[in-house]
Order: sequence, then C-alpha cells, then structure tokens
Amino acid sequence: MEYTLGQIAELVEGRVVGDAGLLIAGIAKIEEAKEGEITFIARSKYAKFFEETKASAVIVGEDFPESEGKAIIRTRNPYHAFLKIIEAFYPEKPVERGIHETAVISEDAVLGKGVAVGPNAVIGRRCKVGDGTVIMPGVIVGDDVVIGPDCVIHARVSLREGVILGSRVTIHDGAVVGSDGFGFAPEEGKYYKIPQVGNVVIEDDVEIGANTTIDRATLGETRIKRGAKLDNLIQVGHNCTIGEDTVIAAQAGLSGSTDVGQRVRIGGQVGFAGHLKVGDDAAIGAQSGVSKTVRPGNYMFGYPAKPYREEFRIQGALRRLPELLKEVKELREKVRRLEEEKGKGC
Amino acid sequence: MEYTLGQIAELVEGRVVGDAGLLIAGIAKIEEAKEGEITFIARSKYAKFFEETKASAVIVGEDFPESEGKAIIRTRNPYHAFLKIIEAFYPEKPVERGIHETAVISEDAVLGKGVAVGPNAVIGRRCKVGDGTVIMPGVIVGDDVVIGPDCVIHARVSLREGVILGSRVTIHDGAVVGSDGFGFAPEEGKYYKIPQVGNVVIEDDVEIGANTTIDRATLGETRIKRGAKLDNLIQVGHNCTIGEDTVIAAQAGLSGSTDVGQRVRIGGQVGFAGHLKVGDDAAIGAQSGVSKTVRPGNYMFGYPAKPYREEFRIQGALRRLPELLKEVKELREKVRRLEEEKGKGC
Amino acid sequence: MEYTLGQIAELVEGRVVGDAGLLIAGIAKIEEAKEGEITFIARSKYAKFFEETKASAVIVGEDFPESEGKAIIRTRNPYHAFLKIIEAFYPEKPVERGIHETAVISEDAVLGKGVAVGPNAVIGRRCKVGDGTVIMPGVIVGDDVVIGPDCVIHARVSLREGVILGSRVTIHDGAVVGSDGFGFAPEEGKYYKIPQVGNVVIEDDVEIGANTTIDRATLGETRIKRGAKLDNLIQVGHNCTIGEDTVIAAQAGLSGSTDVGQRVRIGGQVGFAGHLKVGDDAAIGAQSGVSKTVRPGNYMFGYPAKPYREEFRIQGALRRLPELLKEVKELREKVRRLEEEKGKGC
Repeated sequence: MEYTLGQIAELVEGRVVGDAGLLIAGIAKIEEAKEGEITFIARSKYAKFFEETKASAVIVGEDFPESEGKAIIRTRNPYHAFLKIIEAFYPEKPVERGIHETAVISEDAVLGKGVAVGPNAVIGRRCKVGDGTVIMPGVIVGDDVVIGPDCVIHARVSLREGVILGSRVTIHDGAVVGSDGFGFAPEEGKYYKIPQVGNVVIEDDVEIGANTTIDRATLGETRIKRGAKLDNLIQVGHNCTIGEDTVIAAQAGLSGSTDVGQRVRIGGQVGFAGHLKVGDDAAIGAQSGVSKTVRPGNYMFGYPAKPYREEFRIQGALRRLPELLKEVKELREKVRRLEEEKGKGC
Repeated sequence: MEYTLGQIAELVEGRVVGDAGLLIAGIAKIEEAKEGEITFIARSKYAKFFEETKASAVIVGEDFPESEGKAIIRTRNPYHAFLKIIEAFYPEKPVERGIHETAVISEDAVLGKGVAVGPNAVIGRRCKVGDGTVIMPGVIVGDDVVIGPDCVIHARVSLREGVILGSRVTIHDGAVVGSDGFGFAPEEGKYYKIPQVGNVVIEDDVEIGANTTIDRATLGETRIKRGAKLDNLIQVGHNCTIGEDTVIAAQAGLSGSTDVGQRVRIGGQVGFAGHLKVGDDAAIGAQSGVSKTVRPGNYMFGYPAKPYREEFRIQGALRRLPELLKEVKELREKVRRLEEEKGKGC
Repeated sequence: MEYTLGQIAELVEGRVVGDAGLLIAGIAKIEEAKEGEITFIARSKYAKFFEETKASAVIVGEDFPESEGKAIIRTRNPYHAFLKIIEAFYPEKPVERGIHETAVISEDAVLGKGVAVGPNAVIGRRCKVGDGTVIMPGVIVGDDVVIGPDCVIHARVSLREGVILGSRVTIHDGAVVGSDGFGFAPEEGKYYKIPQVGNVVIEDDVEIGANTTIDRATLGETRIKRGAKLDNLIQVGHNCTIGEDTVIAAQAGLSGSTDVGQRVRIGGQVGFAGHLKVGDDAAIGAQSGVSKTVRPGNYMFGYPAKPYREEFRIQGALRRLPELLKEVKELREKVRRLEEEKGKGC
C-alpha cells in the first residue's frame, strides 16, 4: 500500500512542505525508518534525529524549525498523526465471523449477531456472548459467563464459571479470569481450603495482557473497572478492585483485597501486600513493594515503598554510606585524641 | 436459596439470640453485607463493624459482648461457621461425568470410574487416571502420566510426559507441570542443552495456581509434597523439593534444586537462588531475595533476605540516613574547629 | 536399559579402572545415585562425595586422585561424558509424525516433510512450517506465521499472526509469542490504544520457557537472536532485542525497547526499565532493577542496579548502619562536651 504525501497530509489535517506527490510506502520510528517511509517527531528529544533519519518525510509540530532538503508535514499533534497513519498502512483485517465447526458450544448458550468463535473454542452452559464479539481458537468459557458486545478474547484464554465481561473488553492469549482465590485456613499445621464462591467483573474497555491471572473473590467480587489496562503476567488476587483508567505494567502482583483507585499508574513487578488502598492518581515505581495505604496523588517508590523523594534521597545517601563508615571511624579517633589531650590538661 | 436463622444455628452448632425464624438469603463479609444477609466476626479487629453492618444477623464467638437490636448466633468458632454457611449457600455443582466426544484419548490410556474428561482435552499413551478425577476442557496430558483419584485438573493445564500426581490434587487453568528444566552447558560462548530427563511428582492434596510452571528434574525428580499450596504464576525450577503443608504466594520463584521444608510460608514475588535449603516452619517476607540457607523457624525478609528483626532495624535506620550524612558533616566541622583551637593553644 | 562399564567408557572415550564388565542400570547425581548406577564428578567441590556415594561407578577427570574400592572411568571432560550417558540411558523418543485428524489446518498453509501436528492444534492461513517441525497438541498458530525446520512447539503455545521462527527453535507449553505490546496514549485521563502492528522474529536455536510472553513490536520488530535461551514466565516487551547466546532466568521482565547484547546473563526476576541498552557480556544479578544503560562486560546488581562491587560494599555497610547511628549519637555527645569545656576555658 502506498500513499502520496499529499494524501497523508489530508488524512492528518496537516500541510506539506515539499513535494506533495512523493510516494510513501510505510511508516517507522525515526531511528529505524528507511527511504520511502515517513516518520514523526512528537517530542523535542527526537528532533536530533531529523538530520540523520533515512525517512523520506517527517511529520512535525507547528513549532518545528524551518528545514531544507527533507519533506515535512506540519500538523498540530504529530503523535496523533502517527496513530492515524498506522491505521492507514495497517488497516485492521476483517475477522471471519461465524462459528467454526470444531467449536463446542452448549445448546443453551446465547450468541449475539456477528459473533466469531474460532476452532476448538468451548462455550459452557447458559453463557451469553454479545454482538460482534470475537472468541479466538482454544478459548475455554465456563458455565454462566456473560460477555458483552465487541470484545476480543484471544486464543486460549480461560473465562471461568460466572465471570462477567462488559463491552469492548480485550483479553490476550493465555490469560485466566476467575481462577480460585488463594484462601486456605490453617488448622493444626494443615490447610483447609476456603471455598472461593465469589466472582470477577470486568467492565467496559478493559484490556488484559497475555498469561495474566485474575482470581475470583472469596465472596462478593473482584472488579476491574472501566478503561483499566493490565499488561502481561500480572497477578490480581481475590476481592481486588482496580479503578477506572488505571494502568498496570507487566508482572505486577496484587494480593487479596487490594483496592486501587482511578488513574493510578503501577510499574512492572510491583507487589502489593493485601488489604490496602491506593488512592486515585497515585503512581508506584517499578519493582516497589507497597505495604501501606498510598494516598491519592502520591508517587511511591522502593522496597518497601516510600514517597519517591524520600526514596531518592535515601538511595543517594546509600551510595555514600561506605565512605561515611570510614569518616565516622576517623572522627571517633580524632575525638578520642581530643578527649585524651583534654584529660592531660593543657 | 434461603435458610432461617434457626437452621443456620443448627448447621454451625451455635445458638440464636434473636428471632430464629428470620430468613437469611446470603452470606457476605461484614463490610459488604446487605440486609437479609448474615455475616461473621472471627477476629476482634472486625468487632467495630458490628454496629454499622447492614447484615441482618452476625455470627460471633462465645465471648462477644451482649448486644441489642441485631440477631446474633453465638458459636465456638465463627470462622468455621462461616465456611460451613458458604458451603450451604453455594453447594458444589455436580460435574458432568463421562468423556466428551471431542476429547482425544489414547486407546491404551486407563481411566477410572466416574472420570470426567472435558471437550478437546487430550490424554496421551499409557496414561492412568484415578477414579472420580475431573479433567477440564483443553487439558493436555502427555504420555505415561499418572493422575490419582479425585483430582481436579482445570482447563488448559499441561501435564507433560511421565508426570505423577497423587490424590485430590487441584491444578488451576494454564499451569504447566513437567516443562524442561533450564539447563544449558556453556561451551565456547554458546550453550548446549542438557537433556532434562527427570520427572515431577506431586503428592496428595496439593493445590497449584493458574499459569504456574513446574519444571521437571534434570535427573531424578522435582517433588511437591503432601498438602503444599502454590498460588498463581509461580516458577518452580528443576529438582526442587517443596515440603508438606508449605504455602507459596503468587509470582514467587524457586531456582533449580531449592529444597524447601515443611510448613514454610513464602510471600509473593520472593526469589530463591538455587541449591539452597529452607528449614521447616521458616517464613519469608514478600519480595525477599533469598541467597543463603534459611534455618528452621527463621523469619527472613529483605533483598538480600536477612533475619526480619535485623532487616527492620536497617530499614528504620535507612530512613534516618540522609539526616545522618548532614550530622556527620557538622560533626566533622566541629571537630576540625576543636582541633584547630587546640593547635593554637589555649 | 543396561550397559557394561566398558561400553560406557567407550561411549565417553574414557578408560575403566576396575571391572569393565560391571552392569550399570542408570545415571544419577552423586548425592542421589543408588547401587548399580553411575555418577560423575565434574567439579572439585563434589569430590568430597566420592567416598559416600552409593553409585557403583564414578566418572572422573584425568587428574582425579587414585582410589580403591570403587570402579571409575577416567575421561577428559566428565561433564560431557555425563551428557552423553544421559542420552544413552534416555534416548529421545521418536515423535509420531503426521497430522492428527483433529488438528485444524488452513487449506493454504504449507507444511514441510515429516511435520507433526498434534490433536486440536490450529494452523492459520498462509502459514509455512519447515521440515521436521513438531507442533504439539493445542498449539494455536495465527495467520501468516512462518516456522523454520526442526522446531518443537510444545502444547498450548500461541504464535500470533505474522510471527517468524528460525530453525531448531524450542518453545515450551503455554508461551505466547506476538501478543500486543502494552502501548496506550493518554488523552484527557483516558487511554487510547496504540495499534501494535509490528512483529516478532525468533532466530535459530532459541529456546523459550513455559508461559513466557513476548510482545510484538509497535512498529518494526521484537527480535530474539540466535541461540538465546529464555526461561519460564519471562516478559519481553514490544520492540526489545535480545542478543545472541544471551541467557535469561525465570520471571525476568524487559520493558519496551530494551536492547540486550550478546552473551549477557540475566538472573531471575530482574526488571529492566524501557529504552535502555545492555552491552555484550554483561551480567545482571537476580531481582536487580536496571534503570540505566549497562556497559559491556559489567556485572550489575541491586535495586536499583549498581556495579556489583559497589552494591556489595553498600550491603556490607548497611548491616552496620544501626550501630553507626548509635556511634554518631555518642560522638555528638562527646563533641558537645568538648565544646562546652572549651567554652569554659581551661
């Protein structure tokens, strides 16, 4: 697929400086772009690549300096322009609708219009699947699951019994939603399993990464609220709540009953002790270990997690610690001598 | 399903204080309970919720203070009562027995009585499956696997060739048992794969979480002993041993040949360097990095893991470190002045 | 299967000291070997087990001291000998070739000679599978995937659309290759999904562990280079590059655009912040948090990762920190007294 620079400018509501008839064959990042491709500069730190990029054209902001020798498109938001051009070069492939003959679907399951069910997918009793939802190959949907419209459930996802999904939910391969919470009551050195009879509710526009696991509640529900985005290999314990538009990076882990607010940003490999609350708009640095309530808007970091300024001060001080030990040893010696001499009189 | 308070009291061997004819429609945690539901107070720290809970009845211990206005059931162990009532309100659904027509089962596999095999499950050559075991959809059982009676193997679990499971083992969705150990011999900058020809043995009453991976031994066996409970997304390396009734929280990782004793409690995201021993009844705090042998009964914490008292002392001292740097700087200055003045004579 | 000691010596190009007719029934590690088995001493630290091992014969190096009472085989490289004997006792089982009748293979997919496709595997449109490649049960291969010859794709792996695999690639159960990168553009407190239209390329002789996830690039490619070995439950973000013969232990996580060089050794549970470069031959200690570029050959450790000597010095100093606080307090008191007395005159 090829577009002229003029066509691209029209698409992104920008204006060409250079040859509008130039043919563009693809889009790439500025460091990787080849001749015949277009690229973009969305942040000033990438401006340094302008001269060296092999791209034939560059999308820049309105305030980007004049330039010669390379075609540009000026536009208000180069990053948005970039997203639009990706969609132009990589149009979404239409999914084959219909039910594959090898899918195993309970007679009492109710499937909406335009639903796709891939080979070897299994859909349990009394399930409901909304219009336009795509269920990829090998997905296992337990009994009494409700899936809203326009969801994409990638290959080999498990949706365990009774789980509820809203609209436009995307779940990537191998994720498990609704596995038993980790609840065992100790009794004379052994463990008695606490029945895990609660549920998982996933609201609209949530995205869940590959091989992530979300446990059902012991009682009540585990809930992932509208617009939250979870990366791969994350663990969400029983009875957790994750707020709207919260973003969690890969391999983070939430112990049971963690209550995370809205618009929280959680780094990779972060761990949360159970039964604690993370306020709205908080941020947690990667690999932090959160053992206490986090107040709204706070930025925490470290193991155990502290306000990041404090953590950074400590980290800075730590690097001077070996030297400090020496200094204190010297000081002790000096003070000892001062005391001795004082003792001798003067 | 509804029960009268009297019926519930009988079930939990307690006694009603209030209206025994009161109809109860469900059970919930004390913070979440609604009118018409019953709840419980198992630990004194939840007693404060007694007044505010919307529950119509509360299960309390024998020593709970007198109260008015709310029906209670007094019983010896409110937590046990809670578990019994859960089972009453959420009776286990009977699993459909029999072999689904889409399951692929080797002719020389031997299945016990009352076995259930779900759609698209695959059972390899010479496998043995004990009476009453449930194999959910999409499970892949390799050749020569032995599964004991009354196990539940959830959807899309992999049991690789030769793996041995005891009785009443539960494995959650997507877990992998018997993948190759991570063994490569370096040779001139490249790696030569060490054949992984050992096995995995999982003893009775073990529970393994979703997407957890347990590697087979290089030689010999990886063994998870009776009653051990493993949460989701845990890595167990080749030749590890996990002792009886040991509990491991999500995302912990055991390098090869880690030998964990009985009744050990391991927090989430803990990591173990290989070839080390963890004594019986030890406990390891979340996210700790264990690089040395842990003695029986020790409670370790930190990165690297130290006896928790030492770690807590260090963590406390760390918070004062930036201030300490300033103090030492001031002290140095004072001592310098004292020395100078001493030099001048007095 | 049994071999005489003489046969084994011939296999490993060693020479018997003792009874060459001795029958050997198996091989085991020196601590675990039983009578009738052979074992080996590859490193001097295991020499102490020579006397106590129950093995009937021991493979030792040329420089191992004379010994009595136990048969030995002297050889140049006991570890290599060990690997050869494993292969003799555990010959690889021949895989059944051919396509299982329940596999779902697109009509326009092209399969090489001697390919095996297991039950319920799914192969999408326009895929190419090289000669001798084994695709185990339940594997899901998306459209336009290219798999080279002699690969082993274990059960329930997902290879998403367009992914490219070289020769002799091994991927263990449940791994996901080509899931969407975690890319969302914030816009007025919500997130807009950045289309993930790049690819994943896995070069020859790579091995990928169970339930590991490798995201496709946003644009361009995520690339795992020749001979790299990845353990279980690892996260590789979009646009990462992993160099040749690099080894990554379980549960490590690479954020987007991490560029790891050749022959790098990465410990378990290590985390990398995005957009950073790790030089050739570097090593990163387990659980480290790498937030900056790592120079070639450097050995980093800690959270955040520092040159390991510095980290070890800091860790050592940390253990003395609580004591240091006390010392400084005492010093302060002494200096205060010295100052007071000086003030009084002498």
